Amino acid sequence: MRYKLGTISSIMMWGDLWRNAYNTYGARLKTDNSLFLISSRSSMNKITDLGGVKQLALRLRNWGRWGANDELGTINFATGEKIVNAARLVRKGKVFSLSIPFDSAGPQRPLLGERRFNPIHTMLMTGSDVTADAPIPWPFFRGADDLVILPTQCATHWDALSHVFYEGKMWNGYDCSLVTSAGAQKNGIENYKDKVVGRGVLLDIARCKKVKWLSPSYEITSEDLDECSNSEKVNVERGDFLLIRTGRMAQVKERGGWEDYAGGDAPGLAIETAEWLYRHEVAAVATDTWGVEVRPNATKDCMQPWHLVVLPNMGLLMGEIFDLEELAEDCGEDKVYEFMFVAPVIPFTGAVGSPTNPYAIK
Amino acid sequence: MRYKLGTISSIMMWGDLWRNAYNTYGARLKTDNSLFLISSRSSMNKITDLGGVKQLALRLRNWGRWGANDELGTINFATGEKIVNAARLVRKGKVFSLSIPFDSAGPQRPLLGERRFNPIHTMLMTGSDVTADAPIPWPFFRGADDLVILPTQCATHWDALSHVFYEGKMWNGYDCSLVTSAGAQKNGIENYKDKVVGRGVLLDIARCKKVKWLSPSYEITSEDLDECSNSEKVNVERGDFLLIRTGRMAQVKERGGWEDYAGGDAPGLAIETAEWLYRHEVAAVATDTWGVEVRPNATKDCMQPWHLVVLPNMGLLMGEIFDLEELAEDCGEDKVYEFMFVAPVIPFTGAVGSPTNPYAIK
Amino acid sequence: MRYKLGTISSIMMWGDLWRNAYNTYGARLKTDNSLFLISSRSSMNKITDLGGVKQLALRLRNWGRWGANDELGTINFATGEKIVNAARLVRKGKVFSLSIPFDSAGPQRPLLGERRFNPIHTMLMTGSDVTADAPIPWPFFRGADDLVILPTQCATHWDALSHVFYEGKMWNGYDCSLVTSAGAQKNGIENYKDKVVGRGVLLDIARCKKVKWLSPSYEITSEDLDECSNSEKVNVERGDFLLIRTGRMAQVKERGGWEDYAGGDAPGLAIETAEWLYRHEVAAVATDTWGVEVRPNATKDCMQPWHLVVLPNMGLLMGEIFDLEELAEDCGEDKVYEFMFVAPVIPFTGAVGSPTNPYAIK
Amino acid sequence: MRYKLGTISSIMMWGDLWRNAYNTYGARLKTDNSLFLISSRSSMNKITDLGGVKQLALRLRNWGRWGANDELGTINFATGEKIVNAARLVRKGKVFSLSIPFDSAGPQRPLLGERRFNPIHTMLMTGSDVTADAPIPWPFFRGADDLVILPTQCATHWDALSHVFYEGKMWNGYDCSLVTSAGAQKNGIENYKDKVVGRGVLLDIARCKKVKWLSPSYEITSEDLDECSNSEKVNVERGDFLLIRTGRMAQVKERGGWEDYAGGDAPGLAIETAEWLYRHEVAAVATDTWGVEVRPNATKDCMQPWHLVVLPNMGLLMGEIFDLEELAEDCGEDKVYEFMFVAPVIPFTGAVGSPTNPYAIK
Repeated sequence: MRYKLGTISSIMMWGDLWRNAYNTYGARLKTDNSLFLISSRSSMNKITDLGGVKQLALRLRNWGRWGANDELGTINFATGEKIVNAARLVRKGKVFSLSIPFDSAGPQRPLLGERRFNPIHTMLMTGSDVTADAPIPWPFFRGADDLVILPTQCATHWDALSHVFYEGKMWNGYDCSLVTSAGAQKNGIENYKDKVVGRGVLLDIARCKKVKWLSPSYEITSEDLDECSNSEKVNVERGDFLLIRTGRMAQVKERGGWEDYAGGDAPGLAIETAEWLYRHEVAAVATDTWGVEVRPNATKDCMQPWHLVVLPNMGLLMGEIFDLEELAEDCGEDKVYEFMFVAPVIPFTGAVGSPTNPYAIK
Repeated sequence: MRYKLGTISSIMMWGDLWRNAYNTYGARLKTDNSLFLISSRSSMNKITDLGGVKQLALRLRNWGRWGANDELGTINFATGEKIVNAARLVRKGKVFSLSIPFDSAGPQRPLLGERRFNPIHTMLMTGSDVTADAPIPWPFFRGADDLVILPTQCATHWDALSHVFYEGKMWNGYDCSLVTSAGAQKNGIENYKDKVVGRGVLLDIARCKKVKWLSPSYEITSEDLDECSNSEKVNVERGDFLLIRTGRMAQVKERGGWEDYAGGDAPGLAIETAEWLYRHEVAAVATDTWGVEVRPNATKDCMQPWHLVVLPNMGLLMGEIFDLEELAEDCGEDKVYEFMFVAPVIPFTGAVGSPTNPYAIK
Repeated sequence: MRYKLGTISSIMMWGDLWRNAYNTYGARLKTDNSLFLISSRSSMNKITDLGGVKQLALRLRNWGRWGANDELGTINFATGEKIVNAARLVRKGKVFSLSIPFDSAGPQRPLLGERRFNPIHTMLMTGSDVTADAPIPWPFFRGADDLVILPTQCATHWDALSHVFYEGKMWNGYDCSLVTSAGAQKNGIENYKDKVVGRGVLLDIARCKKVKWLSPSYEITSEDLDECSNSEKVNVERGDFLLIRTGRMAQVKERGGWEDYAGGDAPGLAIETAEWLYRHEVAAVATDTWGVEVRPNATKDCMQPWHLVVLPNMGLLMGEIFDLEELAEDCGEDKVYEFMFVAPVIPFTGAVGSPTNPYAIK
Repeated sequence: MRYKLGTISSIMMWGDLWRNAYNTYGARLKTDNSLFLISSRSSMNKITDLGGVKQLALRLRNWGRWGANDELGTINFATGEKIVNAARLVRKGKVFSLSIPFDSAGPQRPLLGERRFNPIHTMLMTGSDVTADAPIPWPFFRGADDLVILPTQCATHWDALSHVFYEGKMWNGYDCSLVTSAGAQKNGIENYKDKVVGRGVLLDIARCKKVKWLSPSYEITSEDLDECSNSEKVNVERGDFLLIRTGRMAQVKERGGWEDYAGGDAPGLAIETAEWLYRHEVAAVATDTWGVEVRPNATKDCMQPWHLVVLPNMGLLMGEIFDLEELAEDCGEDKVYEFMFVAPVIPFTGAVGSPTNPYAIK
């Protein structure tokens, strides 16, 4: 089988990531200036292979819970009543945009066969054309136009429920073959068109742990989530949009470069947190990392195991590459970790993800 | 001077539009099933040439009003206090998405040298690849990825203040030469990153006039706006996001095709409404049409005169191709024409517009 | 099953095309200004259904002929010796480019789910930027840069042997599942990288029939090919690159618009000519039409039957949307219908087609 | 003035390149495994600043030489007679493709504000769709389609005469403001549509110097060109397409990575060779490097001085990123360094460059 060179190198990178995962676990004691933390999670019942992942996936599977035709999953928890309550959280009139800039200086680097690239922006008409007296056919009117080219998951984005497959199926049991080169016939991002509104809650794990950022490969456990919500005096409730801050974006800003942000070792959710999220019936989870879950993965024989449990099986809406820095600072100051959250998708028909500019409104 | 064929044909189309504008005015009495309306506006002081446009532009010019370095314009009116009040309008927990689908079935047709095209969506990995047992380098994990190509103004969108120039200048007096092929160095869409939140008000002119849609070329006057707000018992206030419904989207849906929606004859705001908007100090205006203002334009020697007054001179945020149908129906039922409005831009650095999926939340 | 609107309309269009095919055959006696011709082919043994197509496909199948690993097909006939002989045909030093312009004024229109669009060209740096004194970081050097977006088959192009499948297989028996969203793992266009050189022969059927262009739906038969080569006093030989002129491009030029050029009714090769081409062992066939073969297709139950026989089964290199007008005029004048032919693909790794600018050199 | 981050870093990189240029000249004695060579050129009359560049540019300026409306430049030297003679050089029937693969593994890296990227190839229909039984509207026919996105200069390419400007002018004195965001109104690549055919000559400087590749920053002088043509017993004549091999592509292949190939230090033509090329009246020059001329540039106050002399002033057709390895090996074996050369542009209307797959035919 021939591959393009780009594909080969990305295979090797991803391969290295999971090959190193299991071996290095436990013994990872190198410290860096991010103040390395030993995970507080008990090692009992830790999932370390595909067998465990599958058991969890089946246990948390929500297929059919909202009907055989559902294409929404856990965002069904975000009801109108929740929206009304969320609006009442707007007290200061302050808006926090949780999006990184969409431009060529973004986090993408050769990955996935070099296919996830940073946004390309190019002009179709310019002001310099006007200054240079380029011929323009319209009386008096002058203007500029432009276009963009971008993978839907290149910067701050939502995953659609058609983005990840589990044993040939996607959310609610739809066959993955419904995602063809013509797009997703089921679970396309357009299903969320008028859905992404509700109460947002920030769990600032890094602040709670009193570090600038969690170390790469730090596993956030269910105990960590509880500890943080206790310390913030905020309850995570049914239908919430849960934002989890690891500090990884702070690290990027401090060092002035994305480096291995996309796909590299990163702090993130442990597999077992899927159960916690299931129990709390959250509508969505988003983080300040590339892929929400911890990397390297704890499972040698299964890449991105947490994704596989929560996205195709639980039906969880997932957001990635959120910039939570400004919001976190404000929450740290006023000690209010809940807010109205509005983060519309752009309804690209049949897309498996969408750029978004999420708003936390306090 | 050589042109591409595409450019030539678009020149001719636009040319025809304005050539026909003045001549046909007044005499346009053809009736169609949209119930043709004679405009209720007084013909006194009607602006019909560039001279009038220029006078109005200078009178309504807001340059310097928010400082010499401002890149935001009238959205400065949408203060934090307004946001708090807007959130109180959320009573039913109902979300209305005002975006059309982003796909190849959109409204664009050969125009602007054929450069505004409908969104192109293409897959980078598919589920059918998985079903067909394509080689995938990752253990157990399977998924789909995609990319999109789109002019920023191809579907529901906001204009940036770098989109339209007036005598070589853009909003706040910045030189239009700051918009080069590298993008807008000033007034780029990213300035609105955390700004588009506030009170929304729907003026449903078509409903007020008791028609399914206003006839193409119907000029909405300041009197129409007053009449409508009176009839709806809603005051348009400083900092509001004003949504104006002409019914043109209803017409598209009923006939089942976009046809000349983009760039054709359309109902829209008369030039003189710029003064009304200035007086009411709205933050933004958006409509269910391609270009907000009436077409054909009333000025033979100036294309899109209302744009030229309000965008580069007043600094008005402008939204186009909004789908107001569902929202209008709901407002017609509960007689509540105000709501919380949240419509984030995607912050493409240096872009002169942005796709958006605006939410009206009641 | 949901479809995008664009897909639906294209389905209907293609559907109409084949629905009309069989019924109208024989009775098509409408005349237009292209001088309608009754096909000279005998009606004996005419293939009119899938059964006949399959029999022919199996009879002409070349799988294994050049080894089990071949990805080149009939271009194997174009040997080095043929290239030397072809070069001897260069006597006048005249070069004919057979490519149409690559720009937004091209032949594509909404088709294939609107996915085959005309080339999009956009600038990354411009001269007007320079004139307008845009900041440029380099000492003294000034320049322009640009990018293009194009379906590989949007204008003058070669099909790769991975472009058409027959019962789940492509050329030489490779499974069609080897063409994934990562590209063609077998039979990609890059295989032709250094191959497209040899003797070109023009069969100008329209001129031979003494018409400006063959009528849409005119079926070119094997007898027509023989008649034309006799009249031109040129033998079609093993390894030749055969160019067949229907005059359809002349029609486009005369009427000044592409109209239904892409996918509409068109003159073209009858299914049975596959046998003729097989017998003559040509390296490639190209025409001045969108799809080489006659449209509507003669088979109700099989779209593009000739493609299915010659591309995946015979392994024939196929060129489409060639502009043969200038070349034909020259051949008509000097009565020399053979020439050196050089038409490189751009070697996009894994692509199923490639733009080309073919040269006929006399 | 704000810049995008990408732009800033590219500015710095380019800046570093020219800052280092003059200082390091002469003293560069570090040796690497490419066998460092002291340039054989006399240091007399060496051009080291913009003043010298300007004098040379004016002396070699060909404006008006082929009429006031010419958009072709030196390729005018490649006459029909030359083409006939070139064809006679085809003796073995061997074709050498001089193109690198067009894919994501290409030489581009963040440069020019990250705007020159490697080709992006994505599928619109796939074989895996077929295998997975995706709904397809056509009877029996199955196939694949795709699209590409690429900067015209990302891989093997020709520069158009609209690519480089000199004091606000391009080739033949046309104003650079004729290159707007709508494309090049003059000197667009489409002018070469049927032009790029003639006699090719390979000057294999690396082989002549008995090294695998010239060291980065090695300046090829006029004396080197003469020495090489003497050693190869081939005369460079009027109208020739001159291919110059530095071995840089061999270095890339041996080390298995492009690294700083694009924009980094590289062997290449000295400024003064412009005079040699002018005297020999070549039609075009192409090399196996990113930018033909030596880097770092010898002039501190002028980036790419040789470009500025030969492209806008002399009107020289220039090719870059040619893979000359296979051809060079063959020439080394049979000692024949001349051949027929055919390298069509893809005629993108108004483009400032074009991908090409050049053929050397022996």
